[in-house]
Amino acid sequence: MGQYYVGVDVGGTTVKMGLFSDVGELLEKWEIPTCLEDHGSHVLTDIVDSIESKRCKWEGNIRGIGVGIPGPVTDDGVVLKCANLGWGVFSVKNELASLTGVGNVKVANDANVAALGEMWRGGGRGYDSIVMVTLGTGVGGGIIHQGKILTGSRGAGGEIGHTKVNPNETQTCGCGNRGCLEQYASATGIVRMAKEHLPENSCLFNQEITAKTVFDGAKAGDEYCKEVVDKFGRYLGLALSNVAHVIDPEAFVIGGGVSAAGQIILDVVEKYYEENSMYALKDRKFHLAELGNDAGIYGTVRMVMFK
Amino acid sequence: MGQYYVGVDVGGTTVKMGLFSDVGELLEKWEIPTCLEDHGSHVLTDIVDSIESKRCKWEGNIRGIGVGIPGPVTDDGVVLKCANLGWGVFSVKNELASLTGVGNVKVANDANVAALGEMWRGGGRGYDSIVMVTLGTGVGGGIIHQGKILTGSRGAGGEIGHTKVNPNETQTCGCGNRGCLEQYASATGIVRMAKEHLPENSCLFNQEITAKTVFDGAKAGDEYCKEVVDKFGRYLGLALSNVAHVIDPEAFVIGGGVSAAGQIILDVVEKYYEENSMYALKDRKFHLAELGNDAGIYGTVRMVMFK
Repeated sequence: MGQYYVGVDVGGTTVKMGLFSDVGELLEKWEIPTCLEDHGSHVLTDIVDSIESKRCKWEGNIRGIGVGIPGPVTDDGVVLKCANLGWGVFSVKNELASLTGVGNVKVANDANVAALGEMWRGGGRGYDSIVMVTLGTGVGGGIIHQGKILTGSRGAGGEIGHTKVNPNETQTCGCGNRGCLEQYASATGIVRMAKEHLPENSCLFNQEITAKTVFDGAKAGDEYCKEVVDKFGRYLGLALSNVAHVIDPEAFVIGGGVSAAGQIILDVVEKYYEENSMYALKDRKFHLAELGNDAGIYGTVRMVMFK
Repeated sequence: MGQYYVGVDVGGTTVKMGLFSDVGELLEKWEIPTCLEDHGSHVLTDIVDSIESKRCKWEGNIRGIGVGIPGPVTDDGVVLKCANLGWGVFSVKNELASLTGVGNVKVANDANVAALGEMWRGGGRGYDSIVMVTLGTGVGGGIIHQGKILTGSRGAGGEIGHTKVNPNETQTCGCGNRGCLEQYASATGIVRMAKEHLPENSCLFNQEITAKTVFDGAKAGDEYCKEVVDKFGRYLGLALSNVAHVIDPEAFVIGGGVSAAGQIILDVVEKYYEENSMYALKDRKFHLAELGNDAGIYGTVRMVMFK
């Protein structure tokens, strides 16, 4: 009879799920919609039903279930409010253990499990201490310290997107503050910066501006796009240098939709990281994430496979 | 026969040493001068001689020796260059173990052991996850994560003094960069700020300016001193908020000579910490350090008493 692990990555729209062998091989992955009705009270039962319906097919024993949640989670699996799902404070770990009968359940923040997944099987392979930053609509972060997620005392470890990089900013971030990294390094932030002083001679003029068109323009030699990319790199390099002065990681992994731009991102971020870092923190490694949307399910399974 | 632990805090001028009982009580403390001749090659032998000369008196067994060093040290006790002492790269742990015959030796950075000491017996009692910042001639930092020093991959964890808080700074920090926290929150930095636009109607005018006279002036209601203290708090509060977004500690402990000013420091730092922090990171505790110069020897002994 097979021995399996299940990885669950809960998002605001879909729940990504993966079945892994007992040596950590991804055997099958699938998605179910996230039901936001009734304050998200169906989310966990939907997950359990989905696991059960697959269980017949696998004919095996589930040795552990790992879960990623888009909100702060403590080390003992208590979610501390999750606005995206409508959840208040409760133990996801205990609830899921009781619904499934599986004792080995672990729960963590989604950005944190993505970081753990990348360390295990992605861009952070070979390290046990990394900082991962996810550049999407917002900027997420996850820190792996000595092979484990750095959760923090109330689940807010690795919230790199809201470190301050520009005390002079006048516009407000989604979090209510001003000058957060997210305002410059997210897809939204890049578009905002690109629109600010857009000159007529830029290739961006009269076309739809996205993070991709900005990076493509810079690669093609457009001076204005290069300026915007430089500004992006200046803030992200500064933020990652500040993070390094706190936890001194071996390497950084950059993921999320924006990172599809590739090497150009590593180059500009590394340049400004070096410029801002004291001697003992220079020469850290920068890598692109490799697992894309699967990073979360890998990370959740890594949590329950290795204590 | 007694069972003892020895704590050693190596500074650039003196080595502070303490003898502790096997329940962690400080029984005796003393100092020896730090001999900087011959690239600091006498420092460890002087320490060993001093321990030996006390050994006769104690008539007991040394169960462990903890050491704090003013430079980056890895988790396995290798110092990675220590300019203050003239040291290169070598295993302080192995050297001291072989010189003394004591197997249980641990070595860490001095700011980090001070943080551990404050968590154990000082301002951070009752927490197991704190950030300590030491405001002296420079700004040192130490992070305790789940009861242990966060050393970092190459001994540079907790270097909070060199996180950047002001991208517009034109003057250069001791580290070679610009805009580091140390330029505003150290005693030197406070004096520098106070001298910048000193008006004739300030109580500081025509007197020697020190961090103490600035804080004393602010307490007495001097408007200009209050401005300088506000600026100090703005930068330190911002820096500690940035640190919190990385590791989410339970509490902050503020020590070093500058912290003698007392409550006024906690008030202004907490104000700006709150202003800069996202919802999940608000309401952290701020405490003054309590152990003064003994924090280091307490912390080194804590390292060897509890694995």
